[in-house]
Amino acid sequence: MAGKTALVISAHSADFVWRCGGAIALHEERGYDVTVVCLSYGERGESAKLWKQEGMTLETVKTERRKEAENAARALDVSDIQFFDLGDYPLELDSGAKDRLVDVIRKVQPQFMLTHSQYDPYNTDHMYATRIALECRMIAQAWGHNPGEKVLGAPQLYLFEPHQTEQMGWKPDVFLDITQVWEKKKAAIECMRGQEHLWHYYTNVAENRGNHFRRNSGGQAGGRDCRYAEGFQSVFPRTVDEL
Amino acid sequence: MAGKTALVISAHSADFVWRCGGAIALHEERGYDVTVVCLSYGERGESAKLWKQEGMTLETVKTERRKEAENAARALDVSDIQFFDLGDYPLELDSGAKDRLVDVIRKVQPQFMLTHSQYDPYNTDHMYATRIALECRMIAQAWGHNPGEKVLGAPQLYLFEPHQTEQMGWKPDVFLDITQVWEKKKAAIECMRGQEHLWHYYTNVAENRGNHFRRNSGGQAGGRDCRYAEGFQSVFPRTVDEL
Amino acid sequence: MAGKTALVISAHSADFVWRCGGAIALHEERGYDVTVVCLSYGERGESAKLWKQEGMTLETVKTERRKEAENAARALDVSDIQFFDLGDYPLELDSGAKDRLVDVIRKVQPQFMLTHSQYDPYNTDHMYATRIALECRMIAQAWGHNPGEKVLGAPQLYLFEPHQTEQMGWKPDVFLDITQVWEKKKAAIECMRGQEHLWHYYTNVAENRGNHFRRNSGGQAGGRDCRYAEGFQSVFPRTVDEL
Amino acid sequence: MAGKTALVISAHSADFVWRCGGAIALHEERGYDVTVVCLSYGERGESAKLWKQEGMTLETVKTERRKEAENAARALDVSDIQFFDLGDYPLELDSGAKDRLVDVIRKVQPQFMLTHSQYDPYNTDHMYATRIALECRMIAQAWGHNPGEKVLGAPQLYLFEPHQTEQMGWKPDVFLDITQVWEKKKAAIECMRGQEHLWHYYTNVAENRGNHFRRNSGGQAGGRDCRYAEGFQSVFPRTVDEL
Amino acid sequence: MAGKTALVISAHSADFVWRCGGAIALHEERGYDVTVVCLSYGERGESAKLWKQEGMTLETVKTERRKEAENAARALDVSDIQFFDLGDYPLELDSGAKDRLVDVIRKVQPQFMLTHSQYDPYNTDHMYATRIALECRMIAQAWGHNPGEKVLGAPQLYLFEPHQTEQMGWKPDVFLDITQVWEKKKAAIECMRGQEHLWHYYTNVAENRGNHFRRNSGGQAGGRDCRYAEGFQSVFPRTVDEL
Amino acid sequence: MAGKTALVISAHSADFVWRCGGAIALHEERGYDVTVVCLSYGERGESAKLWKQEGMTLETVKTERRKEAENAARALDVSDIQFFDLGDYPLELDSGAKDRLVDVIRKVQPQFMLTHSQYDPYNTDHMYATRIALECRMIAQAWGHNPGEKVLGAPQLYLFEPHQTEQMGWKPDVFLDITQVWEKKKAAIECMRGQEHLWHYYTNVAENRGNHFRRNSGGQAGGRDCRYAEGFQSVFPRTVDEL
Repeated sequence: MAGKTALVISAHSADFVWRCGGAIALHEERGYDVTVVCLSYGERGESAKLWKQEGMTLETVKTERRKEAENAARALDVSDIQFFDLGDYPLELDSGAKDRLVDVIRKVQPQFMLTHSQYDPYNTDHMYATRIALECRMIAQAWGHNPGEKVLGAPQLYLFEPHQTEQMGWKPDVFLDITQVWEKKKAAIECMRGQEHLWHYYTNVAENRGNHFRRNSGGQAGGRDCRYAEGFQSVFPRTVDEL
Repeated sequence: MAGKTALVISAHSADFVWRCGGAIALHEERGYDVTVVCLSYGERGESAKLWKQEGMTLETVKTERRKEAENAARALDVSDIQFFDLGDYPLELDSGAKDRLVDVIRKVQPQFMLTHSQYDPYNTDHMYATRIALECRMIAQAWGHNPGEKVLGAPQLYLFEPHQTEQMGWKPDVFLDITQVWEKKKAAIECMRGQEHLWHYYTNVAENRGNHFRRNSGGQAGGRDCRYAEGFQSVFPRTVDEL
Repeated sequence: MAGKTALVISAHSADFVWRCGGAIALHEERGYDVTVVCLSYGERGESAKLWKQEGMTLETVKTERRKEAENAARALDVSDIQFFDLGDYPLELDSGAKDRLVDVIRKVQPQFMLTHSQYDPYNTDHMYATRIALECRMIAQAWGHNPGEKVLGAPQLYLFEPHQTEQMGWKPDVFLDITQVWEKKKAAIECMRGQEHLWHYYTNVAENRGNHFRRNSGGQAGGRDCRYAEGFQSVFPRTVDEL
Repeated sequence: MAGKTALVISAHSADFVWRCGGAIALHEERGYDVTVVCLSYGERGESAKLWKQEGMTLETVKTERRKEAENAARALDVSDIQFFDLGDYPLELDSGAKDRLVDVIRKVQPQFMLTHSQYDPYNTDHMYATRIALECRMIAQAWGHNPGEKVLGAPQLYLFEPHQTEQMGWKPDVFLDITQVWEKKKAAIECMRGQEHLWHYYTNVAENRGNHFRRNSGGQAGGRDCRYAEGFQSVFPRTVDEL
Repeated sequence: MAGKTALVISAHSADFVWRCGGAIALHEERGYDVTVVCLSYGERGESAKLWKQEGMTLETVKTERRKEAENAARALDVSDIQFFDLGDYPLELDSGAKDRLVDVIRKVQPQFMLTHSQYDPYNTDHMYATRIALECRMIAQAWGHNPGEKVLGAPQLYLFEPHQTEQMGWKPDVFLDITQVWEKKKAAIECMRGQEHLWHYYTNVAENRGNHFRRNSGGQAGGRDCRYAEGFQSVFPRTVDEL
Repeated sequence: MAGKTALVISAHSADFVWRCGGAIALHEERGYDVTVVCLSYGERGESAKLWKQEGMTLETVKTERRKEAENAARALDVSDIQFFDLGDYPLELDSGAKDRLVDVIRKVQPQFMLTHSQYDPYNTDHMYATRIALECRMIAQAWGHNPGEKVLGAPQLYLFEPHQTEQMGWKPDVFLDITQVWEKKKAAIECMRGQEHLWHYYTNVAENRGNHFRRNSGGQAGGRDCRYAEGFQSVFPRTVDEL
């Protein structure tokens, strides 16, 4: 299964852990090389605990957040993690930053991509990242962008689970059994020392998505005994040889 | 692959041909036993050509429609076709008819089911059939319905392509390559002598869905050279071990 | 313009007045014969003022409501008004009642039909009437329903304005200038003695829809000086020779 | 606060526990009299564990389910619980059953009502119950229905949390802090001996809704320290004197 | 009730009057300090009457519009009105302008905020203002934005009533009784000398929203006798202790 | 019919051919002057065939694309075609480019405008063009934008047919019979030598839209014998004197 790859586009440096840490670890175990791009560190908006410490500086916050993300990536066996350091609250990509993301997409040539939901009134960085993911996927497909490079095919874009799913209009159409890598995801979650209040929350989410997996795989009449799962929403239709 | 089964619920006796004839023929080739239930013959509402003949009677229309459907089923290698003869325009299922459908569902124990779109302002029989399919799927899952029988698991319900898709709010999330069975679908379509005006229409649909298959499987950068396809909308989420 | 016809399907006997009285009067002036079918008198649910009178009986309420509706129909020059007297709160049509409505549809052969919104959590009779209108339109198109009768073509179904439009998910896509028949609509409204609290309300609606007409016909740069209008939502696409 | 009342319409006899047990217990503590109507026992479709026992009969299942529901109701301090025993999978209400429900609504004169989501492809009984709740609310408002009785005002209809919220298109717009009654809800949940697999699931739900409560009440900048919550979707707009 | 505050973000300098003048005056009477930020004067796009005068200049238009807005604010007892003068048709906020808005949000620390609808194909400034309101609300919540400042909690964002509500997909979920301050709103409306054609329109709106208030507070069975109301759509869920 | 005009805003230089070539040719025959603005040549993203040739340069691609578009425009009798050459994948309009588009809109004073769908996850240039069309339509209506110029009225904005309509949420509400100009559209399509794979596809589309035209104009009971049609979605409501 050599050569399979996937790409995660994470608005802030912790998003990939809560939302698709299981998918990352599982696909690494299945032979994928998973690349994670953190567009920002979430240094301004998602680091309240650090900012509550006296004398905190932006650089220190970034350094701490980067360490946490690197630790989590290690726990998940991430093949490559890149920090674009573009700033958060708000996140903004100029033309150069988009090109940089296109370069990564083309280099990785992912079988599938993962990013945020299409709508998020609480956190406009999240929906902005999704908009950018779609735009850069399109650019990466353009034969006239850096002619001579290998252009991108048509990888699925999965939207991972946002906080407060119903408010985001997010509807999962696929559940992934992450039972076999749960301990890795748990370890990654526990690297996020600044957001300890979310550890239990996302354990609950994983358990309850496990219940959804069981239901949709057969329920009490043959459902798989999945303990932990993650849900994803597909942007594009699938192409198959069997329903 | 012995033991795999699928079930099509068709409001009128021709619907299964235009809308999922390719899926039927393909899965038969893949070892599935596909059962088709025609809830009515479409004898009142979808047999204009016959009714334009002098002296036509309801029984004759039904007989003709049944012959056409049986011929088409044969062309598609359908394992079993059943005619419930419940009347059309409007189609209505009383409690007994629902039980009869539940019996079929339980007997077939389908890996997946196929039926109409959830909305159809042109043809309320279609959306009614979908409502009934959901209701009977639920009843078939009930341990207290005919206790002792094998209850149903959680098969996917695919909604096949309606006429004028956009007016029905139907959005395909999966495209199935039916190139290898296209000749069978074509033959089945041509059994529908009363609706010759639709032969070319659904050939166009199959070709254009082939284009969509190619786009979504990679486009000009590696897309599969699919010539004919069918699209389906899933009602329920999938459960997977790999994205 | 002889031979043009239209059909209004009104759940309760006053609905046609508030919601499309202008359209009726205007099309009568333009040579249409407009038929109104009142499925019920709204005798139980929309006659509070009458029921507050001592000793009131169902028959008296019906008689009063019928008189009001007939007066209003006269004010609007309605060609034909029919009372099906099927009961309200809830309204229900059995198979015979549907056939009766199909008979009217076929006899009228309307260029267009008018009925309620598709959703109404306040008044389930309204959305039920729309469901029935779609079903009966379909039956009227069936060559096998009363073979030999002239079948129905494909008339537009317009959904007239419900109370509290936003709660019903109703979105008008056409505004009709009813300025020239406003006095007729006003007279019809004032026939509704039992619902005097709505006279001013629907005058406001007509004025404000006039504003919308002006905006959408050009605004301050050439908009038509319409004073009163009605809005409608189309269920089906239009077919045209010019955009 | 004497005289305040609320009404829960539960398709099956356990639904009220998982979905709004906290709301019930809390409002009882606040002086409301809460009435629960169980339209069925869920005896066929939601009692798999019982049916797996040898020699089980429908009557025994109903008896067991009733006991569980009564115990849970007691744990929640429910003022009145009524079992309509209308059958499940599918649930159906004829005209008489609707009248019976209208009678309860009028007798209770609830400040607010609680029922299921508007859509549920897994469980059509649930969405049917909601349709009936809207219809009976409307009938209860009709001055001509049993003239002389006190008619219903315009109570809010809250839709409680379904299983797999995103698949149902359910979006909560209000979170209720149930921390002070959590032990009661927990006790009620543990009365449901036939559905032990859901105890942990709905504990997770309550905890995570607590997180949503905290976020929406101020987050890390002043959010209330709510531990357990329930979410509800309102069907109708609110009327207020202050935003 | 000292210390309560609210913030209105108005794309053009007259929007706050038509759309939430009643809410402003009412909350001022209830002890709130309401701040209004006018992002532009609407000098290019919403001042047709002025531009039709010979020799008109941009500066004069702005001055006139400012005067009108200040007069209206006075009529409504607005505590503070600020003019950002960012230009209109199109309105655009650069990074500095966003920071300025964040500063106001943090300084005001509003209990709730008010702005435009999420969609407006007629007036893209309106939906842009909403997008910016969400973004700046998020920035104001970031502990790392101007560390040391008091961060924002989680105030509700209400979307006030747009023109042609149905075209904007706007659906009110709360009606506010503004009867007691109607004379103030009327006075404020009449300050808008350049848009006299809208005075009557928005009086109609207020009256008809009063009807909606009455209906939703009980209708003919106990509804409050509200004469004038305003409607709002909430972006975020509420957190409550009682339903 | 002198003086009638229409304006097409095409993100890339070939879009206008596939999507509204028939509408253009037909309205030219009906006496309209149709102006086409190509915002870019689609030189990077929609010219794969050219880029596959050795030694290809951006300038050569643009030149070829322009030639093709000019040839197609000639085949369709386009009155005026303008190339803004703003770049593609991604397309971006700065303030100056928007003003240039506003100038064209005001000069043309179109009876109606045509552009892309509101959503397109495959091609963000398309939805960006629609956003810009709405914004520039608004600016063109502003009396204070270049005071003294003739301001724009309220022309309809039609959204032409995207590729994979269902994925874009595009729903046609009007079908235009293009049978009489089909040969012109076919000739224009065949000018697109770089996208030969789409010729057959869009012929199928035109034929099947012809079927939709027939259905919606009466079906087997009087439907017009239209052979080729195009579908459009209206953004704004229509204003009429007859339904």
